[in-house]
Amino acid sequence: MSDLQSRLTQIVGAANVITDDFAPYANDWRKKYFGKPLLVVKPGTPEEVAAVVKLCAETKTPIVPQAGNTGLVGGGVPDESGHEVIVSVARMDKVLEVDTINNTMTVEAGCILQTIQEKAAEHGRLFPLSLAAEGSCRIGGNISTNAGGVQVLRYGNTRELVMGLQVVLPSGELWDGLRGLRKDNTGYDLKHLFIGAEGTLGIITAAVIKLFPAPRATQTAFIALESPQKSLELLSHMKGALGDRLTAFELISDFGLSLVTKHFKNLKAPLPQTSPWFVLTDVSDSRDAAALAEEVEVALGEALEKGIIFDCAIAKNETEGKRMWELRENMTESQVHEGRNIKHDVSIPISKMAEFITAADAQLEKAYPGVRPISFGHVGDGNLHYNIAHPLDRFTEESWMKEWEHINLIVHDCVATFNGSISAEHGIGQLKREEIKRYKSPLELRVMRQIKAAIDPQNIMNPGKVI
Amino acid sequence: MSDLQSRLTQIVGAANVITDDFAPYANDWRKKYFGKPLLVVKPGTPEEVAAVVKLCAETKTPIVPQAGNTGLVGGGVPDESGHEVIVSVARMDKVLEVDTINNTMTVEAGCILQTIQEKAAEHGRLFPLSLAAEGSCRIGGNISTNAGGVQVLRYGNTRELVMGLQVVLPSGELWDGLRGLRKDNTGYDLKHLFIGAEGTLGIITAAVIKLFPAPRATQTAFIALESPQKSLELLSHMKGALGDRLTAFELISDFGLSLVTKHFKNLKAPLPQTSPWFVLTDVSDSRDAAALAEEVEVALGEALEKGIIFDCAIAKNETEGKRMWELRENMTESQVHEGRNIKHDVSIPISKMAEFITAADAQLEKAYPGVRPISFGHVGDGNLHYNIAHPLDRFTEESWMKEWEHINLIVHDCVATFNGSISAEHGIGQLKREEIKRYKSPLELRVMRQIKAAIDPQNIMNPGKVI
Repeated sequence: MSDLQSRLTQIVGAANVITDDFAPYANDWRKKYFGKPLLVVKPGTPEEVAAVVKLCAETKTPIVPQAGNTGLVGGGVPDESGHEVIVSVARMDKVLEVDTINNTMTVEAGCILQTIQEKAAEHGRLFPLSLAAEGSCRIGGNISTNAGGVQVLRYGNTRELVMGLQVVLPSGELWDGLRGLRKDNTGYDLKHLFIGAEGTLGIITAAVIKLFPAPRATQTAFIALESPQKSLELLSHMKGALGDRLTAFELISDFGLSLVTKHFKNLKAPLPQTSPWFVLTDVSDSRDAAALAEEVEVALGEALEKGIIFDCAIAKNETEGKRMWELRENMTESQVHEGRNIKHDVSIPISKMAEFITAADAQLEKAYPGVRPISFGHVGDGNLHYNIAHPLDRFTEESWMKEWEHINLIVHDCVATFNGSISAEHGIGQLKREEIKRYKSPLELRVMRQIKAAIDPQNIMNPGKVI
Repeated sequence: MSDLQSRLTQIVGAANVITDDFAPYANDWRKKYFGKPLLVVKPGTPEEVAAVVKLCAETKTPIVPQAGNTGLVGGGVPDESGHEVIVSVARMDKVLEVDTINNTMTVEAGCILQTIQEKAAEHGRLFPLSLAAEGSCRIGGNISTNAGGVQVLRYGNTRELVMGLQVVLPSGELWDGLRGLRKDNTGYDLKHLFIGAEGTLGIITAAVIKLFPAPRATQTAFIALESPQKSLELLSHMKGALGDRLTAFELISDFGLSLVTKHFKNLKAPLPQTSPWFVLTDVSDSRDAAALAEEVEVALGEALEKGIIFDCAIAKNETEGKRMWELRENMTESQVHEGRNIKHDVSIPISKMAEFITAADAQLEKAYPGVRPISFGHVGDGNLHYNIAHPLDRFTEESWMKEWEHINLIVHDCVATFNGSISAEHGIGQLKREEIKRYKSPLELRVMRQIKAAIDPQNIMNPGKVI
């Protein structure tokens, strides 16, 4: 047993230092990264995390902080050097406090997102962060990656849902910023530095998060329309008519929908006729369901009259609404069944989304005639998952994968001309660390490095990620 | 003419270098600070700001960034050394773009807040930041101080309303972060560093800010209740019943109200009988006024039945609502007429506000029998303006002012026991720079200084403020 291992064992106990069977920690969910850690350490308290980090700082041992290990950019997995220690917060998975008057919950970083959602619901509250991995992702990771999801339109990204943080700094010092205050103007707002930093500035150990009154009614609708441009007109119309009640607004292309109904035989398209584009929307409110349904009907009726939409199906009840959402939720998996494609997670100012789709589609078609873009995503947030399947005649799934970088270049250069972002919600991690240099100004990268150096002068905290 | 002056003149033109008549720039609005600048420079473009800062960096000349100069903590005024150059963004006062689909506006830092509000309204949109100084404060200052105001409950602080920034760094480099993206996870979110930094990390020159659909109807109500505790119950009840439609929720003490009706003879209390506490609330929505009024009536009717409130007056129309708000808006000025008092701008977790008021009142009464606390503020945000008027029998206005620090100590120590903040919305500036050391951890102060040193190694950007 190495000296480091024996000292780590003293801090967290032998059962919580893992020396083999690294797979669940060292590989990422998408099976793109296969890292090789020195050890995995699983502290049980913030103080243990602090002691572990202090020891690593003293011995200049690089650390990879990890929560649920469900990230999509390799931000939470180690490199292949065999030198990095994974510090997993998975054991720290308790809800510490629910305050229904302050509308806050205090949680340990290892809390599973779904546990938080359920605890909020028990108290008649909503924690609105919702994403595909919610059954296994952990809140510390959600915060470190500033996770997005399907309710950002109304409630914001994870960043907007965090009120206070407790963080172990790269020095091993424990910063207690666990405040539940809606207003606090006493200097630099440090929590925003750690949110979205992908573990490069410290290890989040606990958080105070925002709760909302649970909506009493939700109305789901599936809408057919001509183009992304019409979806923007519809978004504007619905926002005007329904204000903040508009909770989700997802764009789905005909091709995207056809892959779902092809690979999930139990799922049916909600509308009889076809249409080049669809929108799936949720409207929710504190009012009773009947009143809400009427408002949604009126708003969509107006959209029909104005020629913004072709047709729409309004879910008659919660079950029907859930069936509509299953179409959206299975879009990613249906693509897996169809064969690998080249993925992008981009954001564009909402007003430019339609133009972007037209431009990017055209540029790809020119470079690769017959290419099949699968556009879907959170158009209400300007966030598009723009995935590119191969032309059927000239590429196989395997040969298409070799075009990854070139396709990325075309799509991301196009994003840049619209002043967009090449990572809307997934982060940088390892996947986009080099690519980001092409799109971020040298000045901005330098300021990021200056901050990193100020907080983590030894560069031991998740080195090689983000910057 | 000094060399510096002549070089600054070359950059911005002689008309924009002020060498005397410093009063509007060197003194603060509350007449608490009387600084003495070397010069006032008024650049007309971001590039001119950058050139001015570059020259100051080269000559190690300290800079005080200034927008509307309406701050309450002396953050925008120079010291008395005669060495500091004020860089005013007041000439850069244009709205650059309104995007009603993206729901954003791009503005220069010198834009007056009211101009922005009006421009948004012209386009059927709302920019929700609203505060007493809105006719003269400028958005660059609002952002640098993370201003609050009366609509934070629904729309958040200024921080939540900013999507992108353009900033001149202390090196004189211009950082272009003028993005209009709702999602962008490509590294550290630098804009949050500059928001609320009170000009100590750079000069904000432009911003992309969020717009919202303008509500179609607003319903104001004035409510009598027994205690701050009851106001929290009412807040919970109203949030449950009305969700995000609850836009403002202000607590007013009987004593506070009596000062307004005493000094503003044209203003009348909306309810016939007296009550120890009142709540003024706004509910707004995209629906028509009649439907909204009915919902508010139902919600307040339930609160009456449940014994949460004594009585309420619901404004019959917009004019009546505005009259109710005049009571709130004139609270600060009515206190000026009554004589100076000792002010606090504190925040507390909402669930602890009632306890805090009870505890602080008791501690002050013990130290100064007959003391007269005037509690009012944004209770929906946990933000209290807790002002303390002197006991009538044993102090004069003048002798009371000598107790300022001791009263601050009692109140702020009490705030600290509730894990609150001693500056909810006004900032630190000069006023609380020393005091904050008592309440913030040495670790947090050190991290703030590390960030300051990383971004402004020469300490030329608003030195002596915040940290």
